[in-house]
Amino acid sequence: MTQLSEALAGNITAAMKFIAEKEGIEPEQVRQGVAEGVIVIPANKQRKGLIPTGIGTGLRTKVSASVGLYGARASIDVELEKIEVAVDAGADCVMDLSVSGDIDAMRKKSLAATSTPVGTLPLYQAIAEAAVKRGSPLKMTADDLFEVIERQAADGVDFLALHCGTTMGVIQRAKSEGRIDPLVSYGGSHLIGWMIHNREENPLYTQYDRVLEIARKYDVTLSLADGMRPGCVADSLDGAQVHELVILGEMVRRAREAGVQIMVKGPGHVPLNHIDATVTLQKSLCRGAPYFVFGPVVTDIASGYDHISGAIGGAIAAWAGAELICYVTAAEHIGSIPDVTQVREGVIAARIGAHAADLAKGINGAADWDLRLSRARKELDWEAQLNLALDPKRARELRSRRSEESSEACAMCGKYCAMKVVSQYLGIAERTC
Amino acid sequence: MTQLSEALAGNITAAMKFIAEKEGIEPEQVRQGVAEGVIVIPANKQRKGLIPTGIGTGLRTKVSASVGLYGARASIDVELEKIEVAVDAGADCVMDLSVSGDIDAMRKKSLAATSTPVGTLPLYQAIAEAAVKRGSPLKMTADDLFEVIERQAADGVDFLALHCGTTMGVIQRAKSEGRIDPLVSYGGSHLIGWMIHNREENPLYTQYDRVLEIARKYDVTLSLADGMRPGCVADSLDGAQVHELVILGEMVRRAREAGVQIMVKGPGHVPLNHIDATVTLQKSLCRGAPYFVFGPVVTDIASGYDHISGAIGGAIAAWAGAELICYVTAAEHIGSIPDVTQVREGVIAARIGAHAADLAKGINGAADWDLRLSRARKELDWEAQLNLALDPKRARELRSRRSEESSEACAMCGKYCAMKVVSQYLGIAERTC
Repeated sequence: MTQLSEALAGNITAAMKFIAEKEGIEPEQVRQGVAEGVIVIPANKQRKGLIPTGIGTGLRTKVSASVGLYGARASIDVELEKIEVAVDAGADCVMDLSVSGDIDAMRKKSLAATSTPVGTLPLYQAIAEAAVKRGSPLKMTADDLFEVIERQAADGVDFLALHCGTTMGVIQRAKSEGRIDPLVSYGGSHLIGWMIHNREENPLYTQYDRVLEIARKYDVTLSLADGMRPGCVADSLDGAQVHELVILGEMVRRAREAGVQIMVKGPGHVPLNHIDATVTLQKSLCRGAPYFVFGPVVTDIASGYDHISGAIGGAIAAWAGAELICYVTAAEHIGSIPDVTQVREGVIAARIGAHAADLAKGINGAADWDLRLSRARKELDWEAQLNLALDPKRARELRSRRSEESSEACAMCGKYCAMKVVSQYLGIAERTC
Repeated sequence: MTQLSEALAGNITAAMKFIAEKEGIEPEQVRQGVAEGVIVIPANKQRKGLIPTGIGTGLRTKVSASVGLYGARASIDVELEKIEVAVDAGADCVMDLSVSGDIDAMRKKSLAATSTPVGTLPLYQAIAEAAVKRGSPLKMTADDLFEVIERQAADGVDFLALHCGTTMGVIQRAKSEGRIDPLVSYGGSHLIGWMIHNREENPLYTQYDRVLEIARKYDVTLSLADGMRPGCVADSLDGAQVHELVILGEMVRRAREAGVQIMVKGPGHVPLNHIDATVTLQKSLCRGAPYFVFGPVVTDIASGYDHISGAIGGAIAAWAGAELICYVTAAEHIGSIPDVTQVREGVIAARIGAHAADLAKGINGAADWDLRLSRARKELDWEAQLNLALDPKRARELRSRRSEESSEACAMCGKYCAMKVVSQYLGIAERTC
């Protein structure tokens, strides 16, 4: 039984109960959401030490942070430190996107290092192994890929990113439609390179039933990746992206019929005026499946600051209905991987966007948090303000750096202080200049 | 003649011509916008060395940075350095909000330090001087205030922030409606304290004709400040804020009748789902007058990161029609004044929001910038990418910090590289892993 089949059978699982309590809603609301496929609970049956998290309609918007081994100098310890920092900063789940090194070890250690759901992208390991075993990623076989999918699932990975909808038809459309930047997805590029070289359709599409079988066996949640993720705002909502999304809608339907939990990954680069349409389209084509957006960044020119352009896009996307935001770091578009500081800033920026959306959506508990902090602000209660800040460490650090200036400024008025007059008039805590 | 009276007379001034060229639009479009009051050109007749900037409908969204002397330890040199950093980072105008020290000297040096429009808030100087001259800010006279307004205008300040709509009726409404945080505007608080103490209506309201006379004489643009700026998202669009905005609409009408250019300052703290309504309301009540928003921040809890929560709000506000964004820095809500680094980051964050909005609004030149950068990205032309970045310095710095990892990662494939296959298939620059 998967969470989905339990929900369809009318059963409220322990995970559903736990999530309902955390979110402050009724367990039945969670069960119903899972049954309808508008909530997923990435919780592999083999996973140990997981604290269940729900992603979907009516729940707090979640944030995902990606780490992983990349390049010869990468170190498992550094990537594990990034996981620790990301989770400490409030990441709700983590993706291990290792493409090189000891990918098996990294994954096992990632799963042990956090109690959040962990996701992976099996294609990366499959091509890395094909390079060693067969001399080239292009010589990977479909069975190689499925073997890695099963291996990762058996290890307890909670959600798997798979490019099931990146078909030959889709990539031909990207070529014929004259995209500005035809292909920016790393996994998508490798998969398509393989397809072109081997003149073979995407095995994740043609053998989707094998994907579903593995997913059902372990109750791994599928995260349908978008090989046609637009890589610049000018390519947003073009034929290739929408064609693939139509196919992903078909995959969602089939997964649900198989009792498999599923969510859909999204862009990428989206101008402000396309975000609502993008989310609405995904919700319609994918029958309300949770939408896992990468950012989106709202302009192409913010190199070095894409945690900010991503926070803007994430806020609007989540407000429009996206439920999981993949952070974007300042290292994006610079050709490097994020360091620990950038990981931390990326998580916080995404959380600001997510929380702003939760306020606007009326998610349970969101407005109350702001209200408590604002009451502390009114009362000039600094201790409470700092404790209630989204990132108390940072707020406290900035507050402690502050010089004596403001208290000195108040010497101006003495006992005839306008602020005091106002405070008395309004009946609030006495203010100073 | 002011820019407004020139425009109404059908004349295209040198400033209008210059702005039209910078924005890539027709001079007649600028003239018409100024005539209708939907564009302002803050350009004091006494100002020297100004490069004119237009703010309003159809023009690029502008960003303003605030600096100023605050407290005994403040230094003119440090504040001037902040102006230099802000303008270097792309600020379109600067406000000198000095409240202490040698305010006259700071203003004169600010005007000399930049060729952008400069704004001030005369009340700050008037109360500081009353404290010295009369023993208390509460003993300031209306004539004291008008004397400072005229002095600052005569120095060449291009726009003046004035709380003309903060009437006794408005503040009583803030009290009776039970705002969470009744008053967060510094100038507004001092003004209201003065009004309560002296049992006198706001002189900027009762003697608004004197304001208009000075503004017309120097062609100073008025920036109507909102004493009732909501200080938390829960107070957004409450009776006090909207009551004041109704009065500001009346002030806009009277200014235009007097040939005085005018814009309106806005919040503050606004949840995502109030931003569009807030801007629409301002546009309706204030007859399309340019809207100068402070952020807005979209949540109260992002202490230490309000440049990011402000960038989110600024993007949506500008997209909804606001034309000038006052930056918010990471020092906001921490009880300190921003340092040089925070000034720089604040300007950049606001610019990201502003540009994202310009893309969505279809402002001339906005989409082209992203397109050029994305083409460079597609061509793997790093030099062009870095030059085209919003902040080339930062992009270059991050790029140079990057380790050798990515080039090494590519050792995996050798000549059988999927990326190469894809690149050839798509006919694009050859990619590597």
